[in-house]
Amino acid sequence: MIPYASRMARVAPSAIMALLKQAAGGGFINLASGLPDAALFPHETIRALADDVLTRDWKAALQYGPAEGHPPLRDFVAELMRRRGVAATAENILITSGSQQALDLAARAFVERGSVVSIESPSYLAAIQTFDSYEVDYAAAPLDDDGVRDDVLIANLRHAAGSGRVFQYLLPNFQNPTGLTLSVDRRMRIAEGAADLQLPLLEDDAYYDLRYEGAALPPLAALADNPLAQYTGTFSKTIAPGLRVGWVFGSPEVIAKLAQLKQITDLHSGSLTQRLAFEFCARGHLEPQIAKLCEAYRAKRDVMLNALHRTMPDGMTWTRPRGGMFVFVTMPAGVDADVLLQRALERKLMFVPGRPFFPRNSSSESTGGNTLRLNFVSPPSDEIARGVEVLAELLRSGEP
Amino acid sequence: MIPYASRMARVAPSAIMALLKQAAGGGFINLASGLPDAALFPHETIRALADDVLTRDWKAALQYGPAEGHPPLRDFVAELMRRRGVAATAENILITSGSQQALDLAARAFVERGSVVSIESPSYLAAIQTFDSYEVDYAAAPLDDDGVRDDVLIANLRHAAGSGRVFQYLLPNFQNPTGLTLSVDRRMRIAEGAADLQLPLLEDDAYYDLRYEGAALPPLAALADNPLAQYTGTFSKTIAPGLRVGWVFGSPEVIAKLAQLKQITDLHSGSLTQRLAFEFCARGHLEPQIAKLCEAYRAKRDVMLNALHRTMPDGMTWTRPRGGMFVFVTMPAGVDADVLLQRALERKLMFVPGRPFFPRNSSSESTGGNTLRLNFVSPPSDEIARGVEVLAELLRSGEP
Repeated sequence: MIPYASRMARVAPSAIMALLKQAAGGGFINLASGLPDAALFPHETIRALADDVLTRDWKAALQYGPAEGHPPLRDFVAELMRRRGVAATAENILITSGSQQALDLAARAFVERGSVVSIESPSYLAAIQTFDSYEVDYAAAPLDDDGVRDDVLIANLRHAAGSGRVFQYLLPNFQNPTGLTLSVDRRMRIAEGAADLQLPLLEDDAYYDLRYEGAALPPLAALADNPLAQYTGTFSKTIAPGLRVGWVFGSPEVIAKLAQLKQITDLHSGSLTQRLAFEFCARGHLEPQIAKLCEAYRAKRDVMLNALHRTMPDGMTWTRPRGGMFVFVTMPAGVDADVLLQRALERKLMFVPGRPFFPRNSSSESTGGNTLRLNFVSPPSDEIARGVEVLAELLRSGEP
Repeated sequence: MIPYASRMARVAPSAIMALLKQAAGGGFINLASGLPDAALFPHETIRALADDVLTRDWKAALQYGPAEGHPPLRDFVAELMRRRGVAATAENILITSGSQQALDLAARAFVERGSVVSIESPSYLAAIQTFDSYEVDYAAAPLDDDGVRDDVLIANLRHAAGSGRVFQYLLPNFQNPTGLTLSVDRRMRIAEGAADLQLPLLEDDAYYDLRYEGAALPPLAALADNPLAQYTGTFSKTIAPGLRVGWVFGSPEVIAKLAQLKQITDLHSGSLTQRLAFEFCARGHLEPQIAKLCEAYRAKRDVMLNALHRTMPDGMTWTRPRGGMFVFVTMPAGVDADVLLQRALERKLMFVPGRPFFPRNSSSESTGGNTLRLNFVSPPSDEIARGVEVLAELLRSGEP
């Protein structure tokens, strides 16, 4: 019996994720992953930038750096935030090792045992796992075509705020796992609701740039004056995740505190990789790369949606994401995605059953047992179409 | 009033560190930093490796990777551990973003509010800050020329183990801030003491390779059979800190748990930078680089020790480190290093007063007000000598 701290009781691997990890490789059609399409990585540009940075600026690129991040990158990210409609300077920005670290730092600063995290159900799995490690309770709100139900969410916030510490977490754009986007009206009401109650809020906008139709919508951080509003973004989906460069936006006071946490967590993010991300942006590579990704991912999304439309039996529904990486499928009640996955693996098809995305210990009624998530950006188009066909065959061919 | 979690009450910047940060730049002789000498970074080799990795292996080098780390690097680090006398395979190794992250993950897994951390006094400042954030109490043991007093430390462990959760943290080689090294006899007694009491222990061996005289000593992890023994090392002092690549060794069970924590903390360490560290080692660059560093740092250490011997007034004592980066100076009782620093800054000299390195809230009697730490690897040799001379002039010239 290893004497772990109490919090570790809620740190455990997902059985499904372990199964999928085991199965990876070996000729599977993989609609399960959370990965971007590696074939689109701007590797030649990054190689040239690495050569330049390590020729021109190697002393700083290889040395310890400030906890807050590489100053020119903080400036550039502030500019990115302003383009998204959020007033920001470098003081509002902490560079993190991907947006996962931003999420962990914000949770570490604001939640503890007994805190209530107001969350979408379903929500991003690794966020749920992070909050679990801080021993929180959940108040969950379901989603419909306009994103999370703001009426339920705000009622949850009011109820929880009366009895203790509350933290709001949500993904406004092309949400993981559903692909759904929160409408502007709802964004305003939620942003104002959290501001009125003076609650900390973390908006996880990892997919902002991966928009395949419609105009960009304003972040919640732009819609209400809330000094506890935080927002996280990342270069993982637009440049490359292997660099581990993301950021969190917040008030200068909150950012200074998160930077102190960052320092005791890992001192600072990579000096070389921050410079690669900065030079990539500063030299004008970001926008063309985003345009290239959106064109390719839009086409793949359409392959998946067309295949679903063509093949799915009656009683199945699925989301039609305007961006991001995922389609979320709901099967008839009683069909169990975990059981279906076992049969799919025999046919060399992988997807992620939806259940782990639904926070446990929450007021939400749905446990998501009849749902599943499909990634449409990572596999080649022919495998996307073939994978959906196999899924349809499994659903038609008897007991799931 | 920002509603931070309770733990944040003990997350605060050091006033002295903020002062030194402000003063940085501007023509100072800087004996304060914790940095290695950037002039010795193997930048040409790293540039060539970056070019190769981004030509040959760019898809994986830019993609998400496993939480546990790049498999060949885990294998190589296991081999490094075996060379240090510790039985290890890849299953015993988690790659981290520098050894600071290893420290934070081990603390997160094993300590919580009310835990007792058994620690050297003085000890590594960022470790104290990390443990503070987990709301621990300290049981401190002082050091002498053979390193931490094992009799005091083991008595502390026995006492604390009787009343709750205990965690042992120590730096066996060329300790930060004292430069002192723990003798083999004491290593054995401490390793066995922790094993007998079945206590988790973290050995922070960041300076192992920076040995300028004498034979390498065995890690505590090699000296007793303790499934809770952990050990952290880093490439920050031997290749470059800006890559952010370190590791933690532990039993396969503990490493699996730490990897789950790593995943919710920042998913994984940089895919590109892990490959740069691996290729650097695999192609035989590590040992020559260590030899080069040791030769240069040994000479600088001798410059500092000679300058101290030549200039210091009576009543001053200082350590004579066999490796590492720091000399620790003790002034006569009543001389206050914080006050001395103010006068030093006027003379354009920076050092770190010792007080922050002494854990507060501990049973140790010394608060270290009359001590200071000097870095002998980062500044050029002439500045080391000149800095020590200025320090001596300040000490001779009246009220400190």
